[in-house]
Amino acid sequence: MNGAESLIRTAIAAGVEVCFANPGTTEMPLVLAIDAIPGIRAILGLFEGVCTGAADGYARMAGKPAFTLLHMGPGFANGIANLHNARRARSPVVNLIGDHATWHLEADAPLTSDIVSLARPVSSWLRTSRSAGALSQDIADAIAAARRAPGQVASLIVPSDYQTEEVNGPLSPVEVSDTPAIDGRALSEAASALRSGRPAALLLGGQALRERGLVAAARIAEASGCSLLCDTFPARLERGAGLPSVERVPYFPEHALQALSKFAFLLLVGTTEPVAFFGYPGLPSRLTPPGCRAVVLARTGEDVAGALESLAKHLGAPKSPALPGLHRPPRPQGALTPQSLGEAIAAVQPEGAIVMDEGATSGFPYFAASAAVPRYTYLCHIGGAIGGGLPCATGAAVACPGRKVLALQADGSGMYTLQALWTQAREQLDITTVVCANRSYRVLRIELARAGIKEPGPQATALTDLSHPVIDWVALARGMGVPATRAETAEQVVIQLERGLGEPGPYLIEAVL
Amino acid sequence: MNGAESLIRTAIAAGVEVCFANPGTTEMPLVLAIDAIPGIRAILGLFEGVCTGAADGYARMAGKPAFTLLHMGPGFANGIANLHNARRARSPVVNLIGDHATWHLEADAPLTSDIVSLARPVSSWLRTSRSAGALSQDIADAIAAARRAPGQVASLIVPSDYQTEEVNGPLSPVEVSDTPAIDGRALSEAASALRSGRPAALLLGGQALRERGLVAAARIAEASGCSLLCDTFPARLERGAGLPSVERVPYFPEHALQALSKFAFLLLVGTTEPVAFFGYPGLPSRLTPPGCRAVVLARTGEDVAGALESLAKHLGAPKSPALPGLHRPPRPQGALTPQSLGEAIAAVQPEGAIVMDEGATSGFPYFAASAAVPRYTYLCHIGGAIGGGLPCATGAAVACPGRKVLALQADGSGMYTLQALWTQAREQLDITTVVCANRSYRVLRIELARAGIKEPGPQATALTDLSHPVIDWVALARGMGVPATRAETAEQVVIQLERGLGEPGPYLIEAVL
Repeated sequence: MNGAESLIRTAIAAGVEVCFANPGTTEMPLVLAIDAIPGIRAILGLFEGVCTGAADGYARMAGKPAFTLLHMGPGFANGIANLHNARRARSPVVNLIGDHATWHLEADAPLTSDIVSLARPVSSWLRTSRSAGALSQDIADAIAAARRAPGQVASLIVPSDYQTEEVNGPLSPVEVSDTPAIDGRALSEAASALRSGRPAALLLGGQALRERGLVAAARIAEASGCSLLCDTFPARLERGAGLPSVERVPYFPEHALQALSKFAFLLLVGTTEPVAFFGYPGLPSRLTPPGCRAVVLARTGEDVAGALESLAKHLGAPKSPALPGLHRPPRPQGALTPQSLGEAIAAVQPEGAIVMDEGATSGFPYFAASAAVPRYTYLCHIGGAIGGGLPCATGAAVACPGRKVLALQADGSGMYTLQALWTQAREQLDITTVVCANRSYRVLRIELARAGIKEPGPQATALTDLSHPVIDWVALARGMGVPATRAETAEQVVIQLERGLGEPGPYLIEAVL
Repeated sequence: MNGAESLIRTAIAAGVEVCFANPGTTEMPLVLAIDAIPGIRAILGLFEGVCTGAADGYARMAGKPAFTLLHMGPGFANGIANLHNARRARSPVVNLIGDHATWHLEADAPLTSDIVSLARPVSSWLRTSRSAGALSQDIADAIAAARRAPGQVASLIVPSDYQTEEVNGPLSPVEVSDTPAIDGRALSEAASALRSGRPAALLLGGQALRERGLVAAARIAEASGCSLLCDTFPARLERGAGLPSVERVPYFPEHALQALSKFAFLLLVGTTEPVAFFGYPGLPSRLTPPGCRAVVLARTGEDVAGALESLAKHLGAPKSPALPGLHRPPRPQGALTPQSLGEAIAAVQPEGAIVMDEGATSGFPYFAASAAVPRYTYLCHIGGAIGGGLPCATGAAVACPGRKVLALQADGSGMYTLQALWTQAREQLDITTVVCANRSYRVLRIELARAGIKEPGPQATALTDLSHPVIDWVALARGMGVPATRAETAEQVVIQLERGLGEPGPYLIEAVL
């Protein structure tokens, strides 16, 4: 058994099943070990951002880490943006990064770089292996770190000579740490706030947005009259008929401040106080309004669902709260707009769908339209590094082969990691992608208008324009083996959605907005 | 005048003319300043790796830095791989990286990240601006650092609030440092080696591979009988009829050792001793053979061409050395192979062409075939971070609007940054791209064979395979506005090359190998 094999055996024993990979020369022993030891499915991405984004999507759905397998500093660097998102989503991810043989580093060969400096900003756990014999313990520690609640990005740098060196001895078991319980004082403080008679909201994040947490939150709302909110960009939110409706904190700070100003208490459950996405002159960074007090019920990584259930019990809340029934919007007709596109998806999406929303400005109307459709999982682009959507959808489909995945994808962001479509075709993943082709970086135009720029000059206009030339998404998808069609009306998008969702394998709709 | 305007005014005064950009909210004041102050052409890339690779190609041809304009940590991260290459190519590049308003950083908003840690590994100069008033001096220092011979990557992080704050006062001039001269001892040591009667080679890099250096090297070769070599991957090499033929050091270490073993002296001129690209068991990192002595004539960044001219004079070399005449291979016929593809390009490429070679394993035969074609500039992928070719070609075309650019592009590498084709279409750049569609990561198959793996398992085979599904490059190119055709024979590729080179604007040929 060589070092690479000891690493892979340990990982399989710890439950790792998938590796999103774009390996090079220095990772070949790990690739051979994946072949030699059954248990890990290697999935090729044609760009590392596809691999890391897919690992994020996989983690959100599987609740456990996949590997990424990346080639040295530059290969890792290509995956950083989507690891930034994974870190913000608190997704468990384990990066395996190959490096030169230890004795070759001093030669400063062309691919040599400071991987540690590149990896640190996105890695909650980071280590360079120091011997072949340590690889088993190193990967055990990496997996344990990734699994630490609520989930972390762990990066292990594996020199190529350690991968091929022979090793002996037992494999290292992965030790999973317990989720910290919440303390009783937080519970009574939250209960006091809800009993004060003053308006309050639960701000839910992380595990609070899964079924168990949501049902408990609904009970609390019914008992206390409080509102239910979630972060502007939730990593994963269970939604639809039979689950309580949860409002997102608005994106722009002035709107968020207004929305939150009606509450005297903001109870934080698995998330932190809301902050502005960007700093705008004259507006604060922190969005809890002056008259509103933030109270922590459970921190991220604590037993968030348990805390909500304890609070519900503490309040004597009903065991079976009233929950919304099924409501689908009618199939839209006429012009294709963000609104009608959102309604079209909500009108046809199947029970159990997974919707990955990187629709940016075009995606917002979908959320309201789909509040009470058949039960589904909503994944949101998070972290702000654009280009997460197509890869995340890819990883979610790998994690949940029985479920239909729907990717609501802004065109500008989609161009960042369009190579994900090839992996979708290769693996025949059940993903229907809807590209919101507004042919601009629309959000930047909105930002210019907010900054008082009524008529941007030619270069500012050009830098937000994607229409010269028009991007033909149908051609791009077909070029990577994904069947595709273009929709220019609401009726067309409905028909094409039903076609895409009705057939196995990937499908892409260019929705011209 | 606000901070952004002071920065842009200083840059224009220092000769910056181009900005390869993918800005976001935090860079909008810089975008507005580019609009307000004429002098900088902003060119949009749909992914930051396109912007940084284009800045590398621009720098190699223009000999001065362009700006990149990148959005915070994740946007910068997407450009790291091609900055790694630019650093290895010693290209002058100035990165402008926007960041949150300084007062907003403590909120740890979603896009907040440790930009310094990300930027350090690829930046020879790195600074975070500390006030609006400092922006002019900061950019002057960044440009001066980028221009320091032979060229460096400089990165300036610009908080968004400093961009909009009003500033006064004079702009800062850019001070350019002199190129260090070489010392006399190096010259006499080199001359002694060449006069020893033992076999010697000049290993040329950097400015030694431009016309002035090459002609001086040819004179030295004629006077002394020495051989002329260059790095395996030269950043820029002037080639063709009328210039001396220079051999590349072979890629694999055993071949390099063999090629260099016939020399008693290796004279280093603007480069360093050759090292192996990867560390292979049983082979050394440093490739100067035991019986061969490396002698430094001029270091990278010194007056390399001047050193060669001094040495030629010292040796009493002829003023006009014999130089190869024109020789084109005949137009190839029959099967399309790396060899016939290389001959086809060499047979038709016009005088003054710029050839960007990221052909990887498919590109090697072109180099020998094109030794004595009409004078051209050869740019090589360097640094090992794949995905540099299409962006570099884009930047080279921006720098040299009167010249035809030919991109010899491996398919696997090309998929990393295919978004460059859209910028080529948008700017109507004169670039003919030949995609070498061997539909595999061929080099990894060679590496597996070198490691003694005769029959790789299914996962190792799959991870080096790009044929399931086949990538339709014609569709991908057309999807981004670039006319494209597919060639399956040598005759077809000749016809399509003549068409692509004969028309203005971009063109892509998928050469099926």
